[in-house]
Amino acid sequence: MIIVHLSHFMCISKGLKMDAMEANQFKDFGKEMIDYVASYLENVRERRVLPTVEPGYLRPLIPEKAPDKPDKWQNVLADVEKVIMPGVTHWHSPRFHAYFPTANSYPAIVADILSGAIACIGFTWIASPACTELEVVMMDWLGQMLGLPDEFLAKSGGRGGGVIQGTASEATLVALLGAKAKALARVKKEKPHMSDAEIVGNLVAYASAQSHSSVERAGLLGGVRMRALESDENNKLRGETLEKAIKEDLEAGLIPFFAVNTLGTTSSCAFDRLDELGPVCNEYNLWLHIDAAYAGSAFVCPEYRYLMAGIEKADSFNFNPHKWLLVNFDCSAMWLKDPSWLVNAFNVDPLYLKHEQQGSAPDYRHWQIPLGRRFRALKLWFVLRLYGVENLQAHIRKQIGLAHYYESLVRTDDRFEITEEVLMGLVCFRLKGTNELNEAYIKRINGRGLIHLVPSKIRDTFFLRLAICSRFTEKADIDVSWKEIKDTADEILNNNHCNNHNHVNHK
Amino acid sequence: MIIVHLSHFMCISKGLKMDAMEANQFKDFGKEMIDYVASYLENVRERRVLPTVEPGYLRPLIPEKAPDKPDKWQNVLADVEKVIMPGVTHWHSPRFHAYFPTANSYPAIVADILSGAIACIGFTWIASPACTELEVVMMDWLGQMLGLPDEFLAKSGGRGGGVIQGTASEATLVALLGAKAKALARVKKEKPHMSDAEIVGNLVAYASAQSHSSVERAGLLGGVRMRALESDENNKLRGETLEKAIKEDLEAGLIPFFAVNTLGTTSSCAFDRLDELGPVCNEYNLWLHIDAAYAGSAFVCPEYRYLMAGIEKADSFNFNPHKWLLVNFDCSAMWLKDPSWLVNAFNVDPLYLKHEQQGSAPDYRHWQIPLGRRFRALKLWFVLRLYGVENLQAHIRKQIGLAHYYESLVRTDDRFEITEEVLMGLVCFRLKGTNELNEAYIKRINGRGLIHLVPSKIRDTFFLRLAICSRFTEKADIDVSWKEIKDTADEILNNNHCNNHNHVNHK
Repeated sequence: MIIVHLSHFMCISKGLKMDAMEANQFKDFGKEMIDYVASYLENVRERRVLPTVEPGYLRPLIPEKAPDKPDKWQNVLADVEKVIMPGVTHWHSPRFHAYFPTANSYPAIVADILSGAIACIGFTWIASPACTELEVVMMDWLGQMLGLPDEFLAKSGGRGGGVIQGTASEATLVALLGAKAKALARVKKEKPHMSDAEIVGNLVAYASAQSHSSVERAGLLGGVRMRALESDENNKLRGETLEKAIKEDLEAGLIPFFAVNTLGTTSSCAFDRLDELGPVCNEYNLWLHIDAAYAGSAFVCPEYRYLMAGIEKADSFNFNPHKWLLVNFDCSAMWLKDPSWLVNAFNVDPLYLKHEQQGSAPDYRHWQIPLGRRFRALKLWFVLRLYGVENLQAHIRKQIGLAHYYESLVRTDDRFEITEEVLMGLVCFRLKGTNELNEAYIKRINGRGLIHLVPSKIRDTFFLRLAICSRFTEKADIDVSWKEIKDTADEILNNNHCNNHNHVNHK
Repeated sequence: MIIVHLSHFMCISKGLKMDAMEANQFKDFGKEMIDYVASYLENVRERRVLPTVEPGYLRPLIPEKAPDKPDKWQNVLADVEKVIMPGVTHWHSPRFHAYFPTANSYPAIVADILSGAIACIGFTWIASPACTELEVVMMDWLGQMLGLPDEFLAKSGGRGGGVIQGTASEATLVALLGAKAKALARVKKEKPHMSDAEIVGNLVAYASAQSHSSVERAGLLGGVRMRALESDENNKLRGETLEKAIKEDLEAGLIPFFAVNTLGTTSSCAFDRLDELGPVCNEYNLWLHIDAAYAGSAFVCPEYRYLMAGIEKADSFNFNPHKWLLVNFDCSAMWLKDPSWLVNAFNVDPLYLKHEQQGSAPDYRHWQIPLGRRFRALKLWFVLRLYGVENLQAHIRKQIGLAHYYESLVRTDDRFEITEEVLMGLVCFRLKGTNELNEAYIKRINGRGLIHLVPSKIRDTFFLRLAICSRFTEKADIDVSWKEIKDTADEILNNNHCNNHNHVNHK
């Protein structure tokens, strides 16, 4: 009996007028956009780096509702300058020195066009074999570029391999969850009377108090204790500090299971002593995760690999090509020596995701928090081929050189002090004087809007961070930034001087 | 004392030859890629939908290492056909009927070019105000298009609002973690003697056994019990089933805290009875999360909103515009009535992320698992404007119409049975006969490679799922798919007949 109503078919007739974007308009619009973004990027240093808008600025600029009928693409493109650009913080301006860099390159942008067109969801091998396979091989390319031990690479034929995560935060969480599953299995075997809840309630993880906020958050999300350990006077976490904490916790009946070693902290780009932490973690059976989100890119240059000495003792390693290696966000590279802890712990395997090749290639959905995943390996492939290793090394060396150049300028002016050793593309500095002075100082710098910096504080010292971010940055740009830093210092110190003077007069 | 070595500056001199892609080459390459993807998409139905490659196919096709020197973009583009396309499962072919659709549209692809160029990381408002503000307003536009209650919208001036997550899996996890934080706070107040670990060990969440695998996984990741409840004969979870489970668990001393209501299950696109589950969740103080990942897009058509009756009782609602609403992955739309549970539970607030406007606009990093986030609202803005609401409605109606058309074809052939009511763009069907017959049947269909389907199984019945996926699908494409389905049935039934015949002869 046919119970389908004819009314259902009316909407499928070819006569329906869509008026939506067709291929020819896409070609026009897409090419206009290519020209627009090239012009935007090549001239980005001319724009005010930090916008002047107030919260809520955008809503009045556009309609309250989505339009019923399609608009023209020319109107949409025109609105980019009217609606969007006034509220953009220009991360790729050479005047942008905040946070750490985020990557942006022409090859990566073009790769993403292709990724958007193929638009496969690579949750299993069969869902698009090229998506999984290119990722496996690109992670090997990248691992070799960094000099990672073979155990981390898929080409070694062992269990190890790499995966592209969305962010370093996710990589830390994934590592923590893998470590949690491994610890649960071990303790259940040793102490079969303990319930899962009891075991989890006693687990304890460790990281430097200087580690990224996402490490603390991974502990919160993963529902386990995360102890923040004090670093030494150079802001490096030391082996003896970790060992002392582990011993205390073991005595208190807790179960140490996981530690994060940061290579290049966010506050000051300090490197925890991996050569010391590795042996301690191995001895006490802790999963050791390396968070090298920013600084990891520098390991493409052999001369910086001394900073990851001891890497062979780690269980997982992560850095963000989307920070400093010219691959647009999101591309967070993670390697695991033994992903089976993750794969087995969170393996949910419904029939609609099964396929015949299971086991002979990774199904990356088991390696990550989300199920879906874009074809992100294309970006890596395009960038590695269209720059080549030598240019990527040159990019890192140039940016570190610019940081040292800025450092040398600061050191010519004795009103300033450099607060941390400059190793990568970050310079930590401050005006000699109080924290309050420096707080007012950075507020004034950002208020003037020519350059943008964010501050940090370690123990009781407030300081300014100047990161070399944009790939467009040249020596002359650093001169501009330094002039602005100096001019603002003149202003605030003179003001302060006047204020102090006034203050004296008023006494 | 100046301690910077001059050698650091050598690499920053302008003389360094980069040979990497500059703006002019980007314009050429980008425009070629635009033409390539238009041609790929317009002709995608000519390609074999499912690739024939074996695991490991790709590695021998490319070098073992990244090149030292930059390659030409023309070589990279040529390799797309040689290396990538042979391994692509063509999700946007009208012959692709597996899983559920994933979106792909020209406006979204162009928006992503812009997003890649701005390449801001929108973790806080100040990190790029436009990124946060456009998202707030677009989520209001979208919420209005779906007819969501005002309480979910930011424009209502309450606590509620929307956020773009990466995937529905993350949205479910985020909701579960918010619910967990809320339950912890409540129970700690009521029973101050209980430890966090004890409370968490007693928490229990609920979902239909038909809910997506990511729901079970959210329980695993979040470290809480997740009970899979039986649905009724129409595969809908009923209020009385949930209430019975809650009562049992309360009697056993457990703490019910969270339930997921699926609108459009993955196996058969069944809709849990939200009108029944809502009141039960409210009565027992459970956080109710709606997972409408696929079917939620249909609510842009008022005639389908009866399927979300009771939505006002939910705490969070999620659907994926990146599935069925023509916004490329990743764009998973989530609304929360009260995001403060999330924001407060996982709020880690280092100095380098603080800013002066905190509190007057959302800092979306608190609403999600990762810290970093792309400017994804641009895709939504471009798609909503360049299609218009009417075309998006027409798209949904057309695809549902095509599903009903396919259903009507199946019903003309009495070798087949339709196993589930067809409501959206999914048709569940099977050959009358054993599961083994149907398993062999779908294997043969996918082996022939003209069309691609995945199976599912509910209780003991194995069936085939035909989803209308590609936006290029026309009535004639459905005729092609139906012919293939029928031809393969002829083949396997004749074979089976022969086999049976032979079998008889051999007796």
